Amino acid sequence: MNESPPSLSPAQLKVLHKLFPGEDLLIHPADTLAYSYDNSQRQSLPAAVLFPREEEQIQALLEHCNEWQLPLACRGRGTGTTGASIPPAGGLALSLERMQRILEIDPANRLARVQPGVTNHELQQAAAREGFFWPPDPTSAAVCTVGGNLACNAAGPRAVKYGTCRENTLGLHAVSGSGALLRTGVRTTKGVVGYDLTRLIVGSEGTLAIITEATLKLTPLPEARRTLQATYKDVHSAAAAVSAIMAQPVIPSALEFMDAQALAMVRSYSDPGIAEGAGALLMIELEENAVAIDAAAARLATVAGNEGCIDVAIASSQEQVQALWRTRKSLSPALRNVAPRKINEDVVVPVSHIPRLIDGLTRLADKHHITIVNFGHAGNGNIHVNLLIDPDDPAQMKAADACLDEVFDLVLGLGGTLSGEHGIGLVKREFVSREIDNPTLGLMRQIKDVFDPRNLLNPGKTLP
Amino acid sequence: MNESPPSLSPAQLKVLHKLFPGEDLLIHPADTLAYSYDNSQRQSLPAAVLFPREEEQIQALLEHCNEWQLPLACRGRGTGTTGASIPPAGGLALSLERMQRILEIDPANRLARVQPGVTNHELQQAAAREGFFWPPDPTSAAVCTVGGNLACNAAGPRAVKYGTCRENTLGLHAVSGSGALLRTGVRTTKGVVGYDLTRLIVGSEGTLAIITEATLKLTPLPEARRTLQATYKDVHSAAAAVSAIMAQPVIPSALEFMDAQALAMVRSYSDPGIAEGAGALLMIELEENAVAIDAAAARLATVAGNEGCIDVAIASSQEQVQALWRTRKSLSPALRNVAPRKINEDVVVPVSHIPRLIDGLTRLADKHHITIVNFGHAGNGNIHVNLLIDPDDPAQMKAADACLDEVFDLVLGLGGTLSGEHGIGLVKREFVSREIDNPTLGLMRQIKDVFDPRNLLNPGKTLP
Repeated sequence: MNESPPSLSPAQLKVLHKLFPGEDLLIHPADTLAYSYDNSQRQSLPAAVLFPREEEQIQALLEHCNEWQLPLACRGRGTGTTGASIPPAGGLALSLERMQRILEIDPANRLARVQPGVTNHELQQAAAREGFFWPPDPTSAAVCTVGGNLACNAAGPRAVKYGTCRENTLGLHAVSGSGALLRTGVRTTKGVVGYDLTRLIVGSEGTLAIITEATLKLTPLPEARRTLQATYKDVHSAAAAVSAIMAQPVIPSALEFMDAQALAMVRSYSDPGIAEGAGALLMIELEENAVAIDAAAARLATVAGNEGCIDVAIASSQEQVQALWRTRKSLSPALRNVAPRKINEDVVVPVSHIPRLIDGLTRLADKHHITIVNFGHAGNGNIHVNLLIDPDDPAQMKAADACLDEVFDLVLGLGGTLSGEHGIGLVKREFVSREIDNPTLGLMRQIKDVFDPRNLLNPGKTLP
Repeated sequence: MNESPPSLSPAQLKVLHKLFPGEDLLIHPADTLAYSYDNSQRQSLPAAVLFPREEEQIQALLEHCNEWQLPLACRGRGTGTTGASIPPAGGLALSLERMQRILEIDPANRLARVQPGVTNHELQQAAAREGFFWPPDPTSAAVCTVGGNLACNAAGPRAVKYGTCRENTLGLHAVSGSGALLRTGVRTTKGVVGYDLTRLIVGSEGTLAIITEATLKLTPLPEARRTLQATYKDVHSAAAAVSAIMAQPVIPSALEFMDAQALAMVRSYSDPGIAEGAGALLMIELEENAVAIDAAAARLATVAGNEGCIDVAIASSQEQVQALWRTRKSLSPALRNVAPRKINEDVVVPVSHIPRLIDGLTRLADKHHITIVNFGHAGNGNIHVNLLIDPDDPAQMKAADACLDEVFDLVLGLGGTLSGEHGIGLVKREFVSREIDNPTLGLMRQIKDVFDPRNLLNPGKTLP
């Protein structure tokens, strides 16, 4: 059972074994299989899986990889949806999950310092004990790692008020593709010395450098929360409410949207208690200090209650909160039931163009005979476009491909962007050049060359 | 009066005249003098001053500059304090002040699109008409340009709540040193396609690319504002109050600090009505919605009122607001009176280390026989360290240089950074390598090479 995979020579394996002793190196396919995929539908078996515990191991590894021309992909817990953590063919999977120490929670300076393998949930728990939280809140927060969050510039519903990873990271330790130890950013909330490498590395999907430590900006926990649900006769009225909500000073901590198809999907599996005529729904969550919360909720209810609004409900008990969220939360199981391997895109358009996006998607759904269900983070214009298809049916896949092609043109025509939080990875790579022009892409490629001259870090990802 | 400065040949001048016709090219020293300096004490006469009106002119200019190996420095209104906009010897000054159109204010999508020569004030006025503001608020806001703000990642008091330019810029148009037209970022508040060139260019002090257009994130104007003033027996109590204020959810929109020397300075010129025993002062400004403001102010008064607090005053009228700000606002005239050409550094330390910073500065003031007055943006730990010296006195300058040397070591020893908002430019360049290590600096230099391979944009600035 100690046979080496074909792509690693016995000499290479010996070096790797020395650097990653015992359980910190896996080479048997039965062991490495779990590191061959993520939450996309791609897969590629790595030649070996390595579990570094110290930055020095990563630096030493990079020296060998540069010498051997051996590529690698970093991974946290493999919850990404774009294949960004799929190992390169014949290359290594570098799993950061054992670099899992919370190095520091500093309440007086509102910061946390963590290793990349700490999960988002563990960080939130440690921060909460001191009265703080870290804003990025992807759906996978219970298991995904901070390192993965940073690599993807992950976000979630709360980004509408608190921003994404880029707005909540102060500095990084990282090892570049050439093996340089990088120390970026500061321990303070301001700093203008040198170029901003922190935000360049955040969101680069592991193609520039391997994050080995992050200094994160913490935010004080809110005192009070209120949940509102508003239904609208159509998506136009709902989008008008979104623009109006975002134009006044009480910014909600979540502003989630469901379109008519999403409501129909929920209705077909349960009774959400939503008016029959409703063509769109908004979930609005507010976080304020205790003394302000009720007035703020009343105000948002007023702003949300425009001409096309059917109903606004404010939850006043925990039971009512759960009842209001039930519609939104029953959507994912309903979708899974209909199309377990649906395609989920996360396009973004300027908020005021959400109606034109939804209208356009409706046209494309009709044209390509695909059911498209839309929901997502309306306050950021970040809409999850779900094509309910069976990828094993070649005809459906062909229709989906043709449809997606037009979806991306629609989004870019509305001044939008192809991805708000999932990223590019493998699956959206061929579309990037529609959004970013050649001179700018060329410069990005040169930056990649600077960090990783031998193209060892996640080759074939992110940039076309 | 049409004689060309020695560094431009008649052929070069002819090309430049064609590209920048009429008043858009200045070559006579009497005309170019005003473009030879900024708000630092450096000066260098440019061979010519050019006033582009279109991006295409800048791109064409860069082609010629690359051919001629002719360097240039961009400038807005020359309000920077670090010499970042001083023209290179024998090179060009590119003044963006005539690219001054506000291209778009889009309230529904909370964004503005402007040319770089628009002043901060003009932008604020246009945004305010729609109920919004752009958070960066440097002291020079009345005259400084958005392009200059972005180049320096400018901030100001409000950064404590709303962030700096980096947190409030969505995308850029820019021309790189090699003449490439770059289109970075998005029109939306989320986007993860490609590398984050926007924030890399922001704060790069014109060394990477010339910003020709910016898409800026707007924030709804607050409904209500309250001003508090708190005095403390010493800097330790004041800093404890700062940490406590920043650890609870009502983040002030300004949290300004004055040390004992600053208070003494004000007292020697006027009666600020501050208790004799006061060793530190905080000005706290709050922006909330109307219904929450009084409760929030009362709460901050409670948090600020710790054991070492002498007094907390909440202004309840416009006259009282002005009275409270009088102390802070009379500081600058008082300082100008004593030392018109004082040295003003803007170091940053983690908030909890402010007392150790002030104690260390007091020791250094004694050691070097220099009066040091400290005030600044305490919520960010961004302290303006003012050395009251006469730079024409060689002995004083020598003492100041020796003192600053130790100030920077003190700041870095406390986990701080050399500049929070003023930047590096020419004046702090030699100190950068104390903060950023060689591998990281080396990578920054390579990034500079990618954008500007012939080192034409602001050579000799920012990086050591």
